[in-house]
Amino acid sequence: MDNCIFCKIIKGEIPTFKIYEDESVLAFLDIKPVNPGHVLLLPKKHFATIEDADTATLEKIGAAFKIIGSRLKERLNIAGYNTYQNNGEVAGQEVPHLHWHFIPRQVGDGLELWHGKSYGEGEVEKIYNLLK
Amino acid sequence: MDNCIFCKIIKGEIPTFKIYEDESVLAFLDIKPVNPGHVLLLPKKHFATIEDADTATLEKIGAAFKIIGSRLKERLNIAGYNTYQNNGEVAGQEVPHLHWHFIPRQVGDGLELWHGKSYGEGEVEKIYNLLK
Repeated sequence: MDNCIFCKIIKGEIPTFKIYEDESVLAFLDIKPVNPGHVLLLPKKHFATIEDADTATLEKIGAAFKIIGSRLKERLNIAGYNTYQNNGEVAGQEVPHLHWHFIPRQVGDGLELWHGKSYGEGEVEKIYNLLK
Repeated sequence: MDNCIFCKIIKGEIPTFKIYEDESVLAFLDIKPVNPGHVLLLPKKHFATIEDADTATLEKIGAAFKIIGSRLKERLNIAGYNTYQNNGEVAGQEVPHLHWHFIPRQVGDGLELWHGKSYGEGEVEKIYNLLK
């Protein structure tokens, strides 16, 4: 896609701190990291979101998870990491080219996960009937 | 794993609101949802984290992303969704069986993503040298 910043990075038109590349995916450092070592992983084919992507591409992303996760764990002095990924503006997606965030974690880094709530009476059954 | 609650769910020993299953993965409703329709996706094989899992399993998870993401988008009245996944206690992982969260999103639901910061002088090059 001509106007996509990630497609330009993939084509080498914008420099990045590339940490992994194969024929299907690219991973590089986010220059505005949530924590140091924040990596972005993306397919080279342009898709906006998970539901738009093809299954073969998503399988390649799955395989790359292990490469990126292992590398963060082995080379940075971290106890763990989160991965997340946003589909649609409502979900906070800023670049409409499917991508995953890998966030190295340290004890006391202050990051908090979202909290769960209980379903109201009859609510879970209603959602289940829509999704099953 | 005998003491793993997700392995018990996979074996059918604990009931759940199952929304998708194939030979490799299972997806069901989280009963303490961040938002209604919060789904958990996991491999049937027990691994604690991404770096522990085998590549074939992660490819199956990648393929299932499309099935779960599409289903949420088509059947719930949502504009988008997030996916996230936690590796290690430091990252907020509560059940040590690899799993992904899918969170349906609505405008004004109040959920916020983590914020990026700039790297300090020379810091990004140091991280890059460790990870490249």
